[in-house]
Amino acid sequence: MATTQDVRLRVFSLNCWGVRYLSQHCTPRYQMIADLLKEEDFDLILLQEVYSEKDYLFLKRALSHCNPHSHYFKSGVIGSGLALFSKHKLLDVFLYRYSVNGFPYKAFHGDWYAGKAVGMVVVNIGGMIAHVYITHLHAEYSREKDAYLPHRVAQTWELVQFVRLTSAAADLVILGGDLNMHPSDLGIRLLRGYTGLVDCYHATQNFQGCPDGATYIPQNPFTSKSELETFPNGIRIDYILFKGSATLAAKCDSFSTTMGHVPGQPFPYSDHEALSVMLLAQRQQKKQEEEEEEEAMASSELLANLIDTVNEARTEVKVGLHHMEGMRHTAMRMGIMGLALLLLEMLIALVPWLAVSTEQGFPRATFYLLGSLSLVTLVLTGVLYIFYSTQVKALHSTEEQMRLAVLRLQEQVTSRGPHSR
Amino acid sequence: MATTQDVRLRVFSLNCWGVRYLSQHCTPRYQMIADLLKEEDFDLILLQEVYSEKDYLFLKRALSHCNPHSHYFKSGVIGSGLALFSKHKLLDVFLYRYSVNGFPYKAFHGDWYAGKAVGMVVVNIGGMIAHVYITHLHAEYSREKDAYLPHRVAQTWELVQFVRLTSAAADLVILGGDLNMHPSDLGIRLLRGYTGLVDCYHATQNFQGCPDGATYIPQNPFTSKSELETFPNGIRIDYILFKGSATLAAKCDSFSTTMGHVPGQPFPYSDHEALSVMLLAQRQQKKQEEEEEEEAMASSELLANLIDTVNEARTEVKVGLHHMEGMRHTAMRMGIMGLALLLLEMLIALVPWLAVSTEQGFPRATFYLLGSLSLVTLVLTGVLYIFYSTQVKALHSTEEQMRLAVLRLQEQVTSRGPHSR
Repeated sequence: MATTQDVRLRVFSLNCWGVRYLSQHCTPRYQMIADLLKEEDFDLILLQEVYSEKDYLFLKRALSHCNPHSHYFKSGVIGSGLALFSKHKLLDVFLYRYSVNGFPYKAFHGDWYAGKAVGMVVVNIGGMIAHVYITHLHAEYSREKDAYLPHRVAQTWELVQFVRLTSAAADLVILGGDLNMHPSDLGIRLLRGYTGLVDCYHATQNFQGCPDGATYIPQNPFTSKSELETFPNGIRIDYILFKGSATLAAKCDSFSTTMGHVPGQPFPYSDHEALSVMLLAQRQQKKQEEEEEEEAMASSELLANLIDTVNEARTEVKVGLHHMEGMRHTAMRMGIMGLALLLLEMLIALVPWLAVSTEQGFPRATFYLLGSLSLVTLVLTGVLYIFYSTQVKALHSTEEQMRLAVLRLQEQVTSRGPHSR
Repeated sequence: MATTQDVRLRVFSLNCWGVRYLSQHCTPRYQMIADLLKEEDFDLILLQEVYSEKDYLFLKRALSHCNPHSHYFKSGVIGSGLALFSKHKLLDVFLYRYSVNGFPYKAFHGDWYAGKAVGMVVVNIGGMIAHVYITHLHAEYSREKDAYLPHRVAQTWELVQFVRLTSAAADLVILGGDLNMHPSDLGIRLLRGYTGLVDCYHATQNFQGCPDGATYIPQNPFTSKSELETFPNGIRIDYILFKGSATLAAKCDSFSTTMGHVPGQPFPYSDHEALSVMLLAQRQQKKQEEEEEEEAMASSELLANLIDTVNEARTEVKVGLHHMEGMRHTAMRMGIMGLALLLLEMLIALVPWLAVSTEQGFPRATFYLLGSLSLVTLVLTGVLYIFYSTQVKALHSTEEQMRLAVLRLQEQVTSRGPHSR
């Protein structure tokens, strides 16, 4: 079984900015992306924001020789936008849809319609089982007043749990995508701390690309300059992370990003920069229990940090929960007002001596307009109340899971103690 | 690590029929359930339809001594109704919400509001890691004309994938709940065939309970007699399934159900019968590869059956998909009609010489009523169109996963061949 040969694995990730009719130059950009991918010959290609199935099928045809295996993850109304191409056969495919993901009435923020999710595929690469995850978390529309922070933290938690609980059989775990979080943000700390995944940017000495590994930069002509005012070097929000296992040692050999332009082309591939990494994986003897214990001992401090991080995430989810409960309450009050108005109108219509005079045109028109308005209010607030209720339940569920996680982590710290072995 | 001692594990499952204000005698029945559980001292208790958190908290208090660890899975608007109590500490908790689950406007069928899901907990039972799953699938309201069959099959598929992909680290896997399917139904064959889970009813020589293991019987005063007209012995729709692992041999020692009444009580625990099983688990030497291969060879026929089953399930999901697309189409047409009517009304209102005479009261009232109606139609069909679109995407996703599964299973058959080793 064990070989001493290194397996080399090239992984690519790009947010393609593929919102048809809204994103600029979609067709020529997909052609450029296809040309790049055909030339570079990656093992695994993780694409986000491929919102049009037509574009997915174009890529599928274009990559049919170098990456014959692929999956397009479907979710939400127009999403999930996640597409995966592989040189290696897909053994299994699964999808987890995040339970909290923005609001349907925020049509310009679109996230709800995209049905943000984490896609999973299992591939066999020369006898090595790799579990590959691709995701795109809720966007951050304002860093100062980020109304979606609890959503993104709750999504990160579900991502963490999904990866932790589905990767036990994996020799190698790879996660890539647009996480919409800066490297020191709560969600990234939670993800790295609790899954043990390593950020490729930190794991290699051999990095070529934008300063600080930025993937959304002002030099890119498609990016919003106002968004990047406070970040003149751009921000790093796209990631490839990985980890080996007891039977396989993995390391990141090199990491590169595009830099806002493509030589010989009038515009870049996307508004995000593309990431490519080279991973090296090597079979190793299963670690002895003693070794594992020692490693666990060394990580007591990490454990304490993780507890803080999960607690911080829990606080954020609680904030989101209170906010969501507030909105549900508002929807209910609006609904009651609509109902009261409707009942009043019905009373006026039914009781003759209250009826609006037929001679007066305006009050009658107002009467019916108010009636329509109250009816629509009633229907819409009813739908919203139901929606908010599902979101309250989902956030409650996340918070409970986090509470249990903190308890168990604290027990691990206690059971080790400062002097015990 | 290895011990030769058997671990004995008692598991209980019951659909509690706990819909407040609709289910009869909720309070005394929960008292009876609590008394039973305190007396019987189970390791794991899997309850469904605990829709009121108050009832969960009542049970939590009542069982605080014998089953101090518990989790209430929250999902949907009023659900998920799943509650788990354990004698053993919960190490991890996770929830997967089914992507397709009835319709929100079918309020009397309630499933959509319950947010049907599969809950998962990880427990450590004397050094043995058990992954315990609890679920409740979409109800079957008519066996002859089952409009929800594609929903239940899609849910079963997600359940299968969730269990398969999250149970790799488990020594023992236990799944219990109300599956709303008869033992020979497509979903049960899919679940057993693809996860390898064994039905406790088949696995034991020592069964005590209703004929054929029925769990919804006409002798129970709460059941619908018309529903059971064609099944005078009742139907078996509640299950406990299990499987061991390479390192742990598990078997079912005994299985019993309640029988429609409780001695000394005026009514039974619920409209469903309660299930209790005794599992025996024993550590074993990890199987040799050769042994595993031989076992795999023996299962070629099972594999062929499984391919048929997945194909059958895929057909069923496709039927559901076409139906869902049809409903989306209807919603769109209704929406366009509503919009056309609204535009016509606005035109009449805006163009003076088309305006309804102020002398005629009735046409004016009709005018505004029609306006309100078209407005409400527009809003509702818009919401429905969005809802159906998410469901179409979800069913597409399931169908794609099934297609891939069939391909991989077929390859397994081919690679073995009739004569190859």
